[in-house]
Amino acid sequence: MTEHCVFCEIAEGRAEASIVYDDDRVVAFMDLRPITTGHLLVVPRKHAESLADLNVDDGAQMFRVGQRMAAAIRESRVRSDGVNLFLADGEAAGQEVFHVHLHVLPRYAGDGFKLQITSADPNRSELDDVAAQLRRAG
Amino acid sequence: MTEHCVFCEIAEGRAEASIVYDDDRVVAFMDLRPITTGHLLVVPRKHAESLADLNVDDGAQMFRVGQRMAAAIRESRVRSDGVNLFLADGEAAGQEVFHVHLHVLPRYAGDGFKLQITSADPNRSELDDVAAQLRRAG
Repeated sequence: MTEHCVFCEIAEGRAEASIVYDDDRVVAFMDLRPITTGHLLVVPRKHAESLADLNVDDGAQMFRVGQRMAAAIRESRVRSDGVNLFLADGEAAGQEVFHVHLHVLPRYAGDGFKLQITSADPNRSELDDVAAQLRRAG
Repeated sequence: MTEHCVFCEIAEGRAEASIVYDDDRVVAFMDLRPITTGHLLVVPRKHAESLADLNVDDGAQMFRVGQRMAAAIRESRVRSDGVNLFLADGEAAGQEVFHVHLHVLPRYAGDGFKLQITSADPNRSELDDVAAQLRRAG
């Protein structure tokens, strides 16, 4: 555990949280500032600041539980016509709490969530070049 | 495989793609319309339209490979100060291709990606109530 990490404190039962699920590896609880009702977080029990530090089996379990939480949302009476799973790794990606967490976000038309993006239109040779760079680094 | 599913065709080598990684369960390849350079997708080989159909071990491996691709981006010369992992489940959540896919998106300041959201500020009893609904459904 890391001092003053609120997600460690929740995982250890030392800070208040509205817990939905927990097991040996991960804990799922309601986001304090939900974008939509039902917005929850899945976090590994073992502190990892970023994906670079995250135990791969903890990551796999975080995703399994994210999928399970999406099913629970679908089965529940919480409003939802779809779900986003979202993870921000690093401040530049929007990470605010530096303990890895997977957002599970109920979605419906008019929910106020908007992605403002522009997409490029590279040709195949440009895409192949980036793929080759990533394969070499992988 | 499902007829006319472009991600099935890519996984089977019948459609062109810039492949970064593949194994028995998943394939990773460059997004044709990248939000930032290096934007790639990880998809299960076995067709699943949504999280509800997704084999849980395929999902876990999709996340493991997403984490590995984030590391490859970090190690490569592709511009990135952070990474988002993003999955849209259902049209209301922004899903456009109905074969489950995990976006791996390099991020940096001024990359043009913006999340427009508003957050609520529920009290603990409201959060506990939603958590209880989800636990019952889970």
